[in-house]
Amino acid sequence: MKTLQDLFLDSLADIYYAENQLVKALPKMAEAATDEGLREAFTAHLAETEGHVQKVEQIFELFGESPKSKKCPAIVGIIKEAEEIISENKKSPTLNAALIFAGQKAEHYEIASYGGLREWARQLDNEEAAELLEEILEEEKTADSKLTTLAEDHCNETAKVSRK
Amino acid sequence: MKTLQDLFLDSLADIYYAENQLVKALPKMAEAATDEGLREAFTAHLAETEGHVQKVEQIFELFGESPKSKKCPAIVGIIKEAEEIISENKKSPTLNAALIFAGQKAEHYEIASYGGLREWARQLDNEEAAELLEEILEEEKTADSKLTTLAEDHCNETAKVSRK
Repeated sequence: MKTLQDLFLDSLADIYYAENQLVKALPKMAEAATDEGLREAFTAHLAETEGHVQKVEQIFELFGESPKSKKCPAIVGIIKEAEEIISENKKSPTLNAALIFAGQKAEHYEIASYGGLREWARQLDNEEAAELLEEILEEEKTADSKLTTLAEDHCNETAKVSRK
Repeated sequence: MKTLQDLFLDSLADIYYAENQLVKALPKMAEAATDEGLREAFTAHLAETEGHVQKVEQIFELFGESPKSKKCPAIVGIIKEAEEIISENKKSPTLNAALIFAGQKAEHYEIASYGGLREWARQLDNEEAAELLEEILEEEKTADSKLTTLAEDHCNETAKVSRK
């Protein structure tokens, strides 16, 4: 029988795997971007993502556990989609808009995960873990908003140039 | 070279595939739920999801295209995770909290997709399509909020009972 702490730690292992995959994927997304602002946004978020890996390790410790990684099929699929969309839109004016779209899917996966994990940490009376999870969640939401701003500001407009 | 309309239609084919997969997955999630409110929420969202399939078909038509489905590795991964979490938490008091967590990952995937698609439809001057996409997006956000309410109201608390 699973306890809430088991479910929490399993789900933490899932997001730990996801963050480590994103540490590998984000430099490729930054490299693919031809828009300067977008490249900077991915690069800045890579630094934050490396910080999330460390924070998730801290949360494992707060529960007296060593970090565990659990293969997360969702992030594997999201990254696969990002790779597909990059290769399909390479050399097209749509590339940056497509990269933003792919990036926001990853952000939203993390927003859903960290939102649930923070609530469970509170339920498990681990306020320190809940605060760390809240900090990560806020950074994911800000990263998502930054991508929306880039899309609305000019990346979608630039993509439209290609319309015939 | 891809145009914004190509990118839009490709991404619409991706979410069309995802919605059709969710039409199959939601009855299983409803069946697995032992909380009455959660079962009702999944069942109500199944009806909405069937409506989204039809609306996406309408949007294809608005662009003079017939509906196309494109395999979406992200939703395949998200549904795989849902199946895993159901089987791991079956017969545990954590089951409903786990189902909500899995459901919110699917909702957030759709929120990211429809947000981008709506903006692209506007950019492509197809206001009718943009309005349909906005309607779907609002239903996904409401479904997500309903799951948060169920978790905070009692499903997380009930899951904690299992803590030893």
